[in-house]
Amino acid sequence: MQLKGYTGFSLPSAARAWRIYIISIVWDFMIDVGIVGGSGYTGGELMRLLANHPEVKVVAVTSRKLAGKSVTTVHPHLKSIYSLSFEALNGKEVAERCDIVFTAVPHGTAMDWVPQLLDAGTRVIDLSSDYRLPTDVFEKTYATKHRAPRDAVFGLTELHPEVAHAKLVGNPGCYPTGATLAVAPLAKAGLVERVVYDSKSGISGAGMEPTETSHYPNMSQNIIPYKLTTHRHVPEIKQELSRLSPGIKVNFTPHVIPSVRGILTTAHVFAQKGAEETLQDKNQVASIYREFYKNAPFVRMADAVPKLSSVRGSNFCDISFEPEKDSDRLVVISAIDNLVKGASGQAIQNMNLMAGLDEKTGLWFPGMAP
Amino acid sequence: MQLKGYTGFSLPSAARAWRIYIISIVWDFMIDVGIVGGSGYTGGELMRLLANHPEVKVVAVTSRKLAGKSVTTVHPHLKSIYSLSFEALNGKEVAERCDIVFTAVPHGTAMDWVPQLLDAGTRVIDLSSDYRLPTDVFEKTYATKHRAPRDAVFGLTELHPEVAHAKLVGNPGCYPTGATLAVAPLAKAGLVERVVYDSKSGISGAGMEPTETSHYPNMSQNIIPYKLTTHRHVPEIKQELSRLSPGIKVNFTPHVIPSVRGILTTAHVFAQKGAEETLQDKNQVASIYREFYKNAPFVRMADAVPKLSSVRGSNFCDISFEPEKDSDRLVVISAIDNLVKGASGQAIQNMNLMAGLDEKTGLWFPGMAP
Amino acid sequence: MQLKGYTGFSLPSAARAWRIYIISIVWDFMIDVGIVGGSGYTGGELMRLLANHPEVKVVAVTSRKLAGKSVTTVHPHLKSIYSLSFEALNGKEVAERCDIVFTAVPHGTAMDWVPQLLDAGTRVIDLSSDYRLPTDVFEKTYATKHRAPRDAVFGLTELHPEVAHAKLVGNPGCYPTGATLAVAPLAKAGLVERVVYDSKSGISGAGMEPTETSHYPNMSQNIIPYKLTTHRHVPEIKQELSRLSPGIKVNFTPHVIPSVRGILTTAHVFAQKGAEETLQDKNQVASIYREFYKNAPFVRMADAVPKLSSVRGSNFCDISFEPEKDSDRLVVISAIDNLVKGASGQAIQNMNLMAGLDEKTGLWFPGMAP
Amino acid sequence: MQLKGYTGFSLPSAARAWRIYIISIVWDFMIDVGIVGGSGYTGGELMRLLANHPEVKVVAVTSRKLAGKSVTTVHPHLKSIYSLSFEALNGKEVAERCDIVFTAVPHGTAMDWVPQLLDAGTRVIDLSSDYRLPTDVFEKTYATKHRAPRDAVFGLTELHPEVAHAKLVGNPGCYPTGATLAVAPLAKAGLVERVVYDSKSGISGAGMEPTETSHYPNMSQNIIPYKLTTHRHVPEIKQELSRLSPGIKVNFTPHVIPSVRGILTTAHVFAQKGAEETLQDKNQVASIYREFYKNAPFVRMADAVPKLSSVRGSNFCDISFEPEKDSDRLVVISAIDNLVKGASGQAIQNMNLMAGLDEKTGLWFPGMAP
Repeated sequence: MQLKGYTGFSLPSAARAWRIYIISIVWDFMIDVGIVGGSGYTGGELMRLLANHPEVKVVAVTSRKLAGKSVTTVHPHLKSIYSLSFEALNGKEVAERCDIVFTAVPHGTAMDWVPQLLDAGTRVIDLSSDYRLPTDVFEKTYATKHRAPRDAVFGLTELHPEVAHAKLVGNPGCYPTGATLAVAPLAKAGLVERVVYDSKSGISGAGMEPTETSHYPNMSQNIIPYKLTTHRHVPEIKQELSRLSPGIKVNFTPHVIPSVRGILTTAHVFAQKGAEETLQDKNQVASIYREFYKNAPFVRMADAVPKLSSVRGSNFCDISFEPEKDSDRLVVISAIDNLVKGASGQAIQNMNLMAGLDEKTGLWFPGMAP
Repeated sequence: MQLKGYTGFSLPSAARAWRIYIISIVWDFMIDVGIVGGSGYTGGELMRLLANHPEVKVVAVTSRKLAGKSVTTVHPHLKSIYSLSFEALNGKEVAERCDIVFTAVPHGTAMDWVPQLLDAGTRVIDLSSDYRLPTDVFEKTYATKHRAPRDAVFGLTELHPEVAHAKLVGNPGCYPTGATLAVAPLAKAGLVERVVYDSKSGISGAGMEPTETSHYPNMSQNIIPYKLTTHRHVPEIKQELSRLSPGIKVNFTPHVIPSVRGILTTAHVFAQKGAEETLQDKNQVASIYREFYKNAPFVRMADAVPKLSSVRGSNFCDISFEPEKDSDRLVVISAIDNLVKGASGQAIQNMNLMAGLDEKTGLWFPGMAP
Repeated sequence: MQLKGYTGFSLPSAARAWRIYIISIVWDFMIDVGIVGGSGYTGGELMRLLANHPEVKVVAVTSRKLAGKSVTTVHPHLKSIYSLSFEALNGKEVAERCDIVFTAVPHGTAMDWVPQLLDAGTRVIDLSSDYRLPTDVFEKTYATKHRAPRDAVFGLTELHPEVAHAKLVGNPGCYPTGATLAVAPLAKAGLVERVVYDSKSGISGAGMEPTETSHYPNMSQNIIPYKLTTHRHVPEIKQELSRLSPGIKVNFTPHVIPSVRGILTTAHVFAQKGAEETLQDKNQVASIYREFYKNAPFVRMADAVPKLSSVRGSNFCDISFEPEKDSDRLVVISAIDNLVKGASGQAIQNMNLMAGLDEKTGLWFPGMAP
Repeated sequence: MQLKGYTGFSLPSAARAWRIYIISIVWDFMIDVGIVGGSGYTGGELMRLLANHPEVKVVAVTSRKLAGKSVTTVHPHLKSIYSLSFEALNGKEVAERCDIVFTAVPHGTAMDWVPQLLDAGTRVIDLSSDYRLPTDVFEKTYATKHRAPRDAVFGLTELHPEVAHAKLVGNPGCYPTGATLAVAPLAKAGLVERVVYDSKSGISGAGMEPTETSHYPNMSQNIIPYKLTTHRHVPEIKQELSRLSPGIKVNFTPHVIPSVRGILTTAHVFAQKGAEETLQDKNQVASIYREFYKNAPFVRMADAVPKLSSVRGSNFCDISFEPEKDSDRLVVISAIDNLVKGASGQAIQNMNLMAGLDEKTGLWFPGMAP
């Protein structure tokens, strides 16, 4: 219906009032969520993203250090939107108030929270690395004894729809998300002998604490390779790709770039013997990706090489590829926002499925460009 | 109501289904909006912001140059969210399909669209400079004959609630928005003899077209003062402050900073004779601001010096101030996102009032930090 | 003489060999300099600049913390150029080995070194703030008791040629250098009632230690005003301008910009009563600057608005100006590299004069653009 | 000799005066150089670097478009250092005035200058791509007929000492310089089966002309892969590595990063069958590099992962490496300044050898950090 020339909107206003009334009836069904460790970037990002989630209410945010202070003390962008204060709660207290809890505490600390939360009947999405790997792999990778192993689903939603029924989700690392999504379809098709990942991440991935690397004069006008052959995210990538293609070889080198957000992954894919021609065929490769991601709304096959600005602030993963002529190499590029699809957005996508919602709920908005 | 331990959400799911049905009934009341000139930054930003506006549907986006091409050709971040293509429509055709139209065309071009649109009964929010100033001031400032003067309301919502009833709104310039909001309360209180504005803008304000200034090697690691004493936005600032405090002296110098978005304005406010002590009294100044902005949800008095990251991507204007001891100077800082509160967000805020909606509708979300 | 078509340069090679021999004779006259506190940015910059100074040899660099380690540990850019290691020397030991000593230690610490060095007969250029201000002003500004007041010359070479004969030079702050040079000629001409300085500095000015402000996600895409009315450099500016124009009013607000190096100062100059017309006359203002700086090789009147890239890495101060039509305001812009003309280069310029050399010696090279 | 307590330097001053006299005698032996195409980045950089070269005088700089204008019009950083103006000369006119000529014109244009210059007896260093490759490879790579093939030496000085006697040097591309130096020692040792190069360049490599890619809002906070499998520099890399190790496989993908200068190359080196253990042995690899570069002063084996800031503005190439445990991969990182070691500095290094000078002459200064 067209309302040409209206100035007062009397009719639609009435409709709106009515709708608001209806909505107020169902208000009680809002999901109450808690954030354990809300003072860092991923905690802040959870609040930013959940602010407009239609089915969720953030009811508790913990921080021992900042207990009693407004969440806007460290997250001034949330002012007027949130009136919550940090609280110094224990797991049981959080569980009593929440249906679902996000643990956004440092690696090695989540394992002190998760058992309490699960035992109290709450479902948990852990953004640390504590529940992403089998215990033995975790212990080897992090050189730490795991104090509280639990069954968990690896929360890369596109590959693990079973998160819908999980009690505990180990939300994937930021690098593994972009890296795995870039190559999974080809791996599953059995086309890949080796992937050489060269990943470039914004510095927000290193957290809120100032370090020598994050010092502006060091980071600006620079690109910093680090842990050239030993990054702790490698086992997650290997675990996911090996599931799809046993024996696949994976090499990975990460870099930090002078950008706050975003991970661009350059995947140099080398063909399995005999698969060289298939990888050279752009149409065939395109259809492999299309088929694999047909039910994955957040994976977009990009029309041109993906830009970090196209996904910035959003939950999308953009992917493109290009075969090298007369070669066994195919280059795949993926772009994500490390704090959204690489962390908090991914966690909410998992939460949506766990709560029986459409996975897009509250996350269906574009990136912020320019 | 708590739903401890649910996994299937059978009840809330039913509630949601019911709600969706109700909403579908009122769907017809969605406001149809058009964007004339959708290929630039402000056009793209209107689409980004309207994507989640609950009462609005973008039904037409024009671009002569890109007619027939998907809007995602130049705005790849909108992929999957919008399936619209640019159209080469004239004003009458746009008017036939839209209730409200945003004109996001270059300065001097809007005046070719606005008469047609108004005559067809559509209400218009013009983001160019064509309808912000009295005709004589416009013609002097832009050294151009105005081909189609019309009555328009200056769309700085906080100072012009009469936009609610306007047929035509001249959406303010980006600098005038941050500059005027920073000083208006003090000007109205008659405390200000002179303001020296030193403003710093992200380069997105200069548009999508590559220029020597926007060339990365020129802009990076730099700060570029320009039009040191002659920026065309000065008359807008003078117009607004003079309404509040006749005779107030205004000086203004803009700079471009190596940031994509954001305007930080440093307002060096010098006291009216006799008002020195009032400006020294932080409590009194604070209460002047609080009172002036008590009904302005998008103006936030910041607890610390405002950060661009606190308002990035959002419609907020953050303000703080500090008096200089033993002096006649008070320094006021304001921060906005030039593409949101300084352009497209401001335009939607006006649209909300024009449509009888709460001004926060579709705009009530936090900035993106970090 | 032309050497068309040479391939072996036999003749010039002989000439060169001869010259090298001559130079080796005078080698002994190299000035031995020491750097007390060589691990920070200004210490590193002294070494960078002195590496090619034809009359100087760096013979001692102290750092208690890094004693025994190569200077390239913290200054990897100096590798192959310097083979020095940091030493944990006291003042007397440094003095024994050096003709001239730069103290590049934190504010409040230099006063523990300077007396020892002077007493041992060494001449000192102090890059801290300890010897820039009269003792009473220092103590008020820094809220610290001065433990070792000494006579010192304020080392803004262009205004203080008497540094040539100084035993102790207080090298000026980075902001005062750009700010004072921008306005000194007009102040001396008695044309200025008030200057409102709005300065923008690269973050290297805050030093090598990571802080919340220097944290890349905080600094990037931002501009941060700080100490809005209370920066400790203000007394230096007032001291210098008042000498030239008693009673001149000075206001100052600094900002940090997302740049490593550089200070751009926007000086809003307001005319003394009666001087409005003079400030409006571009030729007259230009000739005032030309005359004032006729013997100042490092001050360049720029043909366009100065760029930080034009002075980056160099000892130049570029200046331009523009009067505001029908107003009492003239805007002056100055650009310096905060670590060179604003610190270490300025110090070497002083050293040159103290050593009887041309002030350009070792400093006469262009900025690094782009 | 120590000059404790001097203030007048009477003796050294005399010595200096004497030396200046001696130098004035040999002044005539200065090499006169010309720059064909001086308005771009590499032309400006040649002037910046040659400003302090002790044996060279820039006597002619050409630009048809800017003829008659001062070189400081486009290179304001050179003000006071150069008083030259651009001239519209032909090759013969340039040759008459110069001993050595740098051609810094666009690819495909140099071939119009070089024959004239060579025929007039001048030696030429060409910074374009016209003389880097065999004619057939050039024509295939650039899809252009070569109008004036000539014998030329590939000017990667470290691998081609024969530049000393060349009449024409084809100065290497920026990517090939960093890429080849990173792997040449291992290739020569026959250890490498394949190298996957993932290179990251500052945007200055794309030149002075604003483009969509160099537009600040596109480049900032981004990293842009381009020509994923087809960059024109690949044949140069293959040519150099194949000379050292026939049959070596090379893959290359370039990216632009938000930095003005610098190329960081990540070389994923895969071992020749049987060479896996050698590549795992850090000492052995280190000694291979040391031996290979023992006479290459500008190649520095870095103590930590190389930083662009360590080489910025300098002619150094910093290299480090790290083997991947239990793998056939060794990661090598190299860092250069694309405008210096990757272009103009490399060209001067060649010129030095061609002129019988030490290759370090005029280039022996550190990078600019921070």
